[in-house]
Amino acid sequence: MPQYDNILNYDTVALDEKNHALVIIDQTKLPNHIEIISLTEQKDIWEAIYLLKVRGAPAIGVAAAIGVYLAARQIKTEDYESFYKEFKKASDYLNSSRPTAVNLSWALNRMEQVVLTRKGSPAADIIEALHAEAIAIREEDIEVCRAIGKNGLALVKPGDGLLTHCNAGQLATVRYGTATAPMYLGQEEGYNFKIYCDETRPLLQGARLTSFELNSAGMDVTVLCDNMSASLMRTGKINAVFVGCDRVARNGDTANKIGTSMAALAAKRYGVPFYVCAPTSTIDMSIADGEGIVIEQRKGEEVTSMWYEKPMVPEGVKVYNPAFDVTDADLITGIVTEFGVAYPPYEDSLARIFLKKEVHGKVMELLK
Amino acid sequence: MPQYDNILNYDTVALDEKNHALVIIDQTKLPNHIEIISLTEQKDIWEAIYLLKVRGAPAIGVAAAIGVYLAARQIKTEDYESFYKEFKKASDYLNSSRPTAVNLSWALNRMEQVVLTRKGSPAADIIEALHAEAIAIREEDIEVCRAIGKNGLALVKPGDGLLTHCNAGQLATVRYGTATAPMYLGQEEGYNFKIYCDETRPLLQGARLTSFELNSAGMDVTVLCDNMSASLMRTGKINAVFVGCDRVARNGDTANKIGTSMAALAAKRYGVPFYVCAPTSTIDMSIADGEGIVIEQRKGEEVTSMWYEKPMVPEGVKVYNPAFDVTDADLITGIVTEFGVAYPPYEDSLARIFLKKEVHGKVMELLK
Repeated sequence: MPQYDNILNYDTVALDEKNHALVIIDQTKLPNHIEIISLTEQKDIWEAIYLLKVRGAPAIGVAAAIGVYLAARQIKTEDYESFYKEFKKASDYLNSSRPTAVNLSWALNRMEQVVLTRKGSPAADIIEALHAEAIAIREEDIEVCRAIGKNGLALVKPGDGLLTHCNAGQLATVRYGTATAPMYLGQEEGYNFKIYCDETRPLLQGARLTSFELNSAGMDVTVLCDNMSASLMRTGKINAVFVGCDRVARNGDTANKIGTSMAALAAKRYGVPFYVCAPTSTIDMSIADGEGIVIEQRKGEEVTSMWYEKPMVPEGVKVYNPAFDVTDADLITGIVTEFGVAYPPYEDSLARIFLKKEVHGKVMELLK
Repeated sequence: MPQYDNILNYDTVALDEKNHALVIIDQTKLPNHIEIISLTEQKDIWEAIYLLKVRGAPAIGVAAAIGVYLAARQIKTEDYESFYKEFKKASDYLNSSRPTAVNLSWALNRMEQVVLTRKGSPAADIIEALHAEAIAIREEDIEVCRAIGKNGLALVKPGDGLLTHCNAGQLATVRYGTATAPMYLGQEEGYNFKIYCDETRPLLQGARLTSFELNSAGMDVTVLCDNMSASLMRTGKINAVFVGCDRVARNGDTANKIGTSMAALAAKRYGVPFYVCAPTSTIDMSIADGEGIVIEQRKGEEVTSMWYEKPMVPEGVKVYNPAFDVTDADLITGIVTEFGVAYPPYEDSLARIFLKKEVHGKVMELLK
C-alpha cells in the first residue's frame, strides 16, 4: 500500500492515478488515529462508504464516482452491451452501500450517463470519459465549496471568533467543506480566526472531526459542549456562526444537524449573525417550508452508551434522539451559496440565486 | 453493615438512629450500581462529601450536620471547654471536605451555635440538642422542598410534559429536590407526567442522576441531549420547564447549570412556561443582576475524555467549559420558592417573598 504521510497534502477523497486507487482518510479512526487508506477492490470501497470511513454527502458522491470508474477499468470486454451490463452491476453495488444518500445515486447516475451517451464506443474511450467525469465531479465539488468560502469570507473580518456546529467540513466534502470553507480561505489569507466547535452530541462530529481538521490546518480551535454556545455568545467572543445544512426549504427554513436551531436562537438573542452555508444542490425549492421536512429519529444507544465506558442512562428510561432539527428562516441572517449570499425574504432571494445558476449553466454550455 | 435494600424507603441523606450511622446513596456509582452506604467513621463521612458520594448543596449540609452530631457522640469528656474544642476540631475537619459549598459551612455553623449557646451544660444534654438540630436541619430541607413542590404543582396539570435540566432532584436534597419537587408531588397525586431530562453535558447529571431517581420513583422518563430540547418543544410535547438554580439575583437573573439559558431561549421561542425552583436561601438580594455572578470555569478533560473509552477531542484543541450560565430574567416565567411563586417584575415580587419569609419567621418564633 502506498504511503500517504501528511493528510494536509491530500483531500478527503482523491484518485491515486499511479496506483489506480481511491484514497480516503478513514474517519472512523479520528481523532485518535490518522489513517489514510488506499482502496482498489470494489468490496473495500463499498465497505468504506457503508462503515462511514468516508462520510458527508458530497464526499460520498465523489468516492462513488471514482469507485465506479475504477470498476469500469477492470471490465474485460470490447462488447458495449456486456460492458454496460457489468458497469451497471458495479454501479448498483456501490449504490447499495448507503441507499438514502442522495449524492451517491446522483454521482452514479452522472457516471452512467457517460456510458449511455457513448453507446457503441470502444471500451477504452468510455473508460477515459468515465475518468474525466469522475475528475469533473470531484473538481466541481471543490469549486462549489471554494465559491461558498469566498462568499462567506466577505461576511467576516480578520481575528473574528467563528462558531460552527457538527461537521460541514472538508471531511464531508473533497476540500474546504461548506461551513468551514470561509475558515479555510481565511486561513490561506492570514485571517487568524478563533474557531469554536460545538461538540455536537450524540455523535460528536464537532469534537471528533471538525476540531480535528481545523486544528490540523493550523487554526486556533476551541471545543465546547452544545449547551455552552449561548454562554460564549453572551461574552461577545463570537462574531458569526457558520453551519452547513441537509436541506433548505423555499422560505429559508433549514434542516441541519440536531442542535443547530438552538445555536441560532442564541445567536439571535446576542445579535450574532447566523449563516447557513448551502450548495444550491441542498436547496429544495419544491418544499414550501420546514414543516415539509421529515426528521429522522435514531437509536437511543447513540445517546445512552455510544463512546462511553459504561451506559450513562439507567435501564427503563426512554430516549429522544432526532438526527436533525429545523431552524426557522427568521433566525437566519443569510444563506451562503456558490452563487452568492441570499438574504430575507428568502423566497425571492433564493429564486434569484437559482436564476443566476441557470444563466451560469447556459454560459458554460456555450463556452464548451 | 446494615442492609438498605430499597432506596425508595430512604431519603438521599438519613440518620440511622439504631446504628448511629449516616446513611447515603453512593451517587458516584449511579446509574449502574445502587449502593446505599452506612458511615460511622468521620474520615469516611469526610471522604463521602469530598468524593461526591453525596452531592448537592442542601444534601451536603444535612450530611455534615448529621456527621458532626455523630462525632460529638464519640467525645469522651464531661469538661465543656474540652468538649467544645473536640467538637470544633470535628466540625473544621468536615468543613474542609468541600470548602466552597455554602450549605456545608452554614449547617456546621448552626450546629456550632447549639454547642456555644449551651456553655457549661452536661455533654449528654449538648449531644441531645445536637441530635435535635441535625434532625431539624434535615426536616427543614424536606419542608422547603415540599413547599416548592406544592407551589410548582399548581402551575401544571395532569398528563403534562415537563422538561428539566441537570439534577436539582432528590439526590441533591434530602427528599423531593427543588426542580423535581412538583414532579414527585404530582406522582403522589397520580398526575402521570411525561418527564424529559436534558442529559446535561459534560457531567451528565441529567442522564445519570435525574433520570435515575425519577425512573426509580416510577415516572415516565425520557432522556435527550441538551441540543434537542428546542426540537422537542417545537413538537408541543413540553408544557413547562422546571430547573433549579445556584444563585438568583435581585432582578431575577438566574445562574444555573450550563445550558439552562439555552433551554430558556427555546422555551420563550415556543411559548413554553419556564420556571426556576429556588429555595429563598439561593436568592441573593445583594446582587443587582446576572453581571454580578461569577462563573466557574472547569477543566477541559470533563469535555474531552471523562466517561469515554478514549479521548474524543484531538490534542492541541482548546476547551471552553463553564460550569454555569446566566438565564436573563425576561426568559423566566416565574420563580418558585417555598413562600410562593414570584412573577416579573422580580425586584418587587422577590422583595414580597422575603417579607413573607420574615413574617413567617416571626410567627414561628412566637409559636415556640
